Order: sequence, then structure tokens, then C-alpha cells
Amino acid sequence: MLHLRSSQFSRVMVKLGPVFSLATVSPSTGDGETTDNGEAIINLDHGDPTMYEKYWQRMGDKTTVVISGWQFTSYFSDPKNLCWFLEPELAEEVVRLHRVVGNAITKDYHIVVGTGSSQLFQAALYALSSDASEPMSVVSAAPYYSSYPVITDCLKSGLYKWEGDAQAFDKSGPYIELVTSPNNPDGFVRQSVVNRSGGILVHDLAYYWPQYTPITTPADHDLMLFTVSKTTGHAGMRIGWALVKDEIIARKIVKYIELSTIGVSKDSQLRAAKVLRAVSDSCGVAHPFKEETFFGFSHHSMESRWMLLREAVNRSGIFSLPEFTPGFCNFWNRVFEPLPAFAWLKCGDGIEDCESFLRGHKIWTRSGRYFGVSPSYVRISMLDRDRTFNLFVKRLSRIRSQRRMRLEHVD
Amino acid sequence: MLHLRSSQFSRVMVKLGPVFSLATVSPSTGDGETTDNGEAIINLDHGDPTMYEKYWQRMGDKTTVVISGWQFTSYFSDPKNLCWFLEPELAEEVVRLHRVVGNAITKDYHIVVGTGSSQLFQAALYALSSDASEPMSVVSAAPYYSSYPVITDCLKSGLYKWEGDAQAFDKSGPYIELVTSPNNPDGFVRQSVVNRSGGILVHDLAYYWPQYTPITTPADHDLMLFTVSKTTGHAGMRIGWALVKDEIIARKIVKYIELSTIGVSKDSQLRAAKVLRAVSDSCGVAHPFKEETFFGFSHHSMESRWMLLREAVNRSGIFSLPEFTPGFCNFWNRVFEPLPAFAWLKCGDGIEDCESFLRGHKIWTRSGRYFGVSPSYVRISMLDRDRTFNLFVKRLSRIRSQRRMRLEHVD
Repeated sequence: MLHLRSSQFSRVMVKLGPVFSLATVSPSTGDGETTDNGEAIINLDHGDPTMYEKYWQRMGDKTTVVISGWQFTSYFSDPKNLCWFLEPELAEEVVRLHRVVGNAITKDYHIVVGTGSSQLFQAALYALSSDASEPMSVVSAAPYYSSYPVITDCLKSGLYKWEGDAQAFDKSGPYIELVTSPNNPDGFVRQSVVNRSGGILVHDLAYYWPQYTPITTPADHDLMLFTVSKTTGHAGMRIGWALVKDEIIARKIVKYIELSTIGVSKDSQLRAAKVLRAVSDSCGVAHPFKEETFFGFSHHSMESRWMLLREAVNRSGIFSLPEFTPGFCNFWNRVFEPLPAFAWLKCGDGIEDCESFLRGHKIWTRSGRYFGVSPSYVRISMLDRDRTFNLFVKRLSRIRSQRRMRLEHVD
Repeated sequence: MLHLRSSQFSRVMVKLGPVFSLATVSPSTGDGETTDNGEAIINLDHGDPTMYEKYWQRMGDKTTVVISGWQFTSYFSDPKNLCWFLEPELAEEVVRLHRVVGNAITKDYHIVVGTGSSQLFQAALYALSSDASEPMSVVSAAPYYSSYPVITDCLKSGLYKWEGDAQAFDKSGPYIELVTSPNNPDGFVRQSVVNRSGGILVHDLAYYWPQYTPITTPADHDLMLFTVSKTTGHAGMRIGWALVKDEIIARKIVKYIELSTIGVSKDSQLRAAKVLRAVSDSCGVAHPFKEETFFGFSHHSMESRWMLLREAVNRSGIFSLPEFTPGFCNFWNRVFEPLPAFAWLKCGDGIEDCESFLRGHKIWTRSGRYFGVSPSYVRISMLDRDRTFNLFVKRLSRIRSQRRMRLEHVD
């Protein structure tokens, strides 16, 4: 229902100009090659950001790190810092990148590093509820990130408790509302929905980067989470960071990470610093649209992929995708439509269980039911390698609705 | 009361032979230099294993790792392995090192990597209690590792609950007993003490390495935890591993780490693999007593430090240390006394709060009360850099008992 019309394709292409060729995801080039016998399993269940590998390969040695055997024998990175396990180099690059991109204020914020933003999410729950006399309600508007319920409740904590969809939340007392913006799974920009006193907000801004969504304003919420995985594609590093306004909350987040893992891998922090520095550097040396810049490459890849996906969905006639309102991006200095890291696909044609239906075509996705909504939806990663993505859109476009096939036959 | 007698010093020196010179910790050499005005704070509260830095510096480039910018973009290390985030290289080196040292069986065990052994401890609690209908009791014989109570209870879990000293434990129902051997803080070899049905044991074997204790037998418990921090001194990597007999338990441990941090830093796993390989390699190329071998260097350092500490304690007349029964070590092929990573120091002379007393001398240690026993005890790290350790023993030796000073005056 919500297909991108062909007039929209042209508009996007014109705006992008010639540097945004489709070569990187074309089925006819190199690792994008796709000959599909329908047998290979296409696993797009996880948001594994391997799409970015290609960019970093092109950058050659620019972000190679060399670590000597005698480095990092200590638990401590910066004993005088509130976050004593944060490598100063990483802190510096986090501040710089937010300044370059303009997606978050860092002045007067405490930076806390975590083993990915999952750990920081748990640390935030602990920090915000540790003085609570009874379990605090944790809510998020559906569709919400599928890991929130299971992470929140896995230890049956007496400090906090998952209470589901924020839109249906009507309990009294203090609560924590998780605001993921752009949202995982559906890519929409979000704000708090509960909107009453006693609420504390945690903003998960993992996808608030200019390859995915227009950067409209520097975010300045009380507690914001980011992760290298979705920023630069280095999921294997397991590095995230929190920007925290309140010192006492920041100290409790640090305490949780101390109890949970006694700090965060210094090797990965060093590497993350180098990668973030390369991203900031690349923004300064070339026109941001150029593929030499990290965001140029990644924004272009996302734009190409979304076009291919919308074409495939359109051809199929079974599925639909969300349609987004274009917004002005301060980073790109132009208007564009969000290009989420996940496609939030809806099955039509009377198919109730979209995940099972696609599994029948050997496409693995994650059912809407994990996100608190109907199983007619699935979440699909848009960040896999070219080869996988191209196989996926090709296979998807061949899944035709019976009605469409009859119409085509009549034509 | 439990001082090492001078006849014991000689015996140890003779056994070690000339390669075990005291040069590395002598106050007259390089970073061992100590001129103490009594003002510098000596922080031995944490078990920060910086002593090992010197060995790895000597090894030069042997364990330098080079990681390219495009490596480790994926969450996955080995998708077909039960532990899908374990780098195969690390798994291989863990197996090899246990074989070389002979301290644990790995055949028919599942290896699960964690962000340090703290995370694996929490994962083990989750795995062992996730089906429990009411909170399982978690116990350990006092003095127990000071982090156990606070980690176990920090989230007020409904799955498990800290119940304190295993020796006083008399509740019915299932329980988890933590057996740390050699023990942190006191260095003694331990076995389960509760000894009734319904108990599940978790063996924390972080210190079961030949620099600290005689390797008497390859351990073959159901669930064993190890950590790179205490094995090679690389605390900043945050890498530990569990050896798990039961597949279902192993899967649950993996699940917890997935929920907690979506895997473990691949950069640090790669580096840990290289460091463990260097340790195994070094055991093969030189006589194990030689300082070129990792265990030669570290065992010798520990032996020297314990001699210096016992001398200082003896001179002071206020303090006492545990005395250990020598044991035959299969790795060294000789008898030696345990050389723990922590000194478990007791204050005499009517001093009730040893931590405060030492703090008055600007020596920071951890009070016995955190370990479930009397504050007349403190735990002191034996693994800091030479300079710190030497300052410490020098300052300690000058803290004289009033009685001893009177006697000396009479002499």
C-alpha cells in the first residue's frame, strides 16, 4: 500500500546527483553477484551491519590499529574520570563526532562507555531504579525493540519490570519510558508518548545518524544511548556510549558496568576511537556526498537499497512498507526521506504470519509479535552485505500475489 | 603469628636456583626504585595485575596484534558453534594452554567466552537458576570474594539471592555454592563445604595457575571459570572463559551473554588468543624455570614478592600472614608453597580495623568485612608494578609495634 512511486525514485536520484551511482549494490558487480536458485537461506533476522565492511576495506590501512603485548594490563583507563574505564582517546572522538554531525549536545554531559548499548540500557535501568521501593514500570511504544522485554525481565529484577506498550500504559507511580528514535523496528522518529509526571526517559539514539535519518536538531535529552555498531558498522567491537546529564545517574551507570563486567575492553575502545576519528576526518576532507566520506558511502548505500527494496515490494504486490515524511537534514543541508536500518514489512494477501510465510521462501526475518504487534509484520535488516541484500530483493520481487499474477496473466 | 621463618627463606632460594634472582623486584633497579617520604598513596585495594607489564615489554613484538579497519563488523564469530560469539582462535588457545599447564580438562567441555569472568559468574547464576520457582540461595565459604554478595544482589533478582557464608548455611532447598580455589582473598585451596544434595557448584579457578599455586591435578568440575586478567595480566582486555560440562547449561550461559552484551569484544578475543599462544609457546622453548617463559617470570616474581613481604611483616611485629602447606606441582615438577595473588594480612597489637590503620599510613587495602569476616584482616594486591610493591613492603616494614620498639630500645 505504501510503495514509493516512480516519480519519487526520479526525485531522489536527481537530488543525489551522479556521485550516487548504484554500482555498489548492483547485482552485476563483484560481491553483489546474485544467481539465486532459491535454496540459499537469506538470514536477515539480526541487524548485523556487515554492509559497512566494504567501506572500511576501501579505506585500507587508515584505521588499522596496532596494539603491543604490554598495553592495557590495568583495569583502569583514566582513574580520575567519573568513568574510570573510559579511554580518554575515545571520549575525545565521541565529542568530536557529535560536533561534526550535529546530532547530540555533549557539553555538560558525562560520557560513559559500555559493552555495546545493550549493556548501557541495563545500566540505565539499574541507575534509574536503584532507589525504588517497588519494581519500576518499564515501557516503550509498540512496535518496540524486541530485546527490551526479554532483557528487562530475564533476571526477574525487583528494581524494574517490563510493562509493555507505552501507549496502553495506565499504572500510577514512577516509570521509565524507552524512546528509540529513529525507532527499531519501524524507522519512525519518536517522542515520549506517556507524557505524565513521574516518568524518566531513556533515549536510544542508535540510529540517529545521517545515513539513516535527517539530522534535524542536536539531541539534548537527559540520558542518550549510542553504539558504534550502528554508527560505523563495527558490531564485533561491542562498544557503545551514554551521554548523561545528571552526575549521580552517571555514577550509578558506571557502578553497574563495574559490577557487570569491571569496565569495557580497552582494545576495542582504542579501535573505536580510531574508527570514529576516521569518520570525522573523512567529513572534513571531501564533499560529504562523495563516497570517500563515511556518511557519503553509507547514505548512498541506504538510498540505493531502499529504492531496490521498494521496487521489489511494488513488483510483488503482497507486501507494503512504511512511508516517511521527508525532513530537512542539517548535516546534508537538504531534504530527504528516512532510510532506516530495518525494513518493517507488512504482508497483505490474507497472510497472517509473515515470518513463516517468508521462511517458506528461505528468507529469515523477525516477526512483529516480538515487537509487541501483529505477526503480519516482520523486521528485516537492511545492513547485510551486498550479496545477501541483492539476493533478498531479487527473491522478494518474485513472490507474487495470486491476484497480481492473475492480472498479469490477463494483461 | 604465621611468619615465614628464615630457614624457610633459604630452602626456597636453594630450590629455585640461581635463575631466580631478585633483580626484578629489587629496590635498586629501574622502575623498582623506592624513595619513600611516606606521602605517596599506595593503592593495593584492587587486584590490578600490572606486575605482568614488564614481562610483555620484554617480549617486544611477539604479541603485537594488528587489526584492520574492516575486520569484525559482524556480531558473529562462529555461527555454527554453540557459543556463536567465540573466536575459534581463542577456543584453540584455551584448550592448548590448559593442556600445556595441566590445570583443567577441556575434552567434552563447552567453552564459553565472557567479558571477564565476572560476566561469566552472573551468566552461571542465571543458567543455574532460570527454572527455579523461588530465588536460589547463593553461598560461599567466608572469607569469600568481596564482589560476590554485591553482584548477586544488585538487581534484587527473583532467580537467586545471596545467603552468605557457606559454612553457616542451613536452609533447605536447592543452592549454588561458589568455590574459589585458590581462594580470593586468602589463597587457600578449597573444596565445597556445604556437601548436601540439591547443591550446584561453580568453581572459580581464576588463580589456578602455576605462578600462584601448585598444579596438583587437572580440574574436571562441572562449571569452571577462568580469566585472562589473572592468567597473563591483561585485565584491560576483559576476557574470561567458562568450561562447561552440560550442554543445556552452556546454552543458557551463552543466552545470558547474548542478552547482557550481545557477545564479547572480538578485538580482545583475538589479542587474548595471541597472548595465550605466546604463553604456551614460551613453555615449549625454554626450561620452564627460565625467565623467558611466562610462568618462569611470574612464578619467580611472586616468590620474590612473598619473601619480601614476609620479611617486612616479620620486621614489623604487628601483622601476620597465612602459612601454607607446600604441595607438589605437576607443572614445575617440584614442591612449593602457594604464592597467592593477594596477601591476606591480619593486624595484631590490639588494632581492630586494619584497613583504617593502614590508610593512616597511606596504604589502601580492602577490609575483611567485605569478605564476610573480621575487619582485623585486609586483602592486599600482590600484582602491582615493582615500584608500588617495593614502596609498600618498605613502608609496611617501618610500621613497628609499640612492644617491638620497646624491646628494640632495650636491646
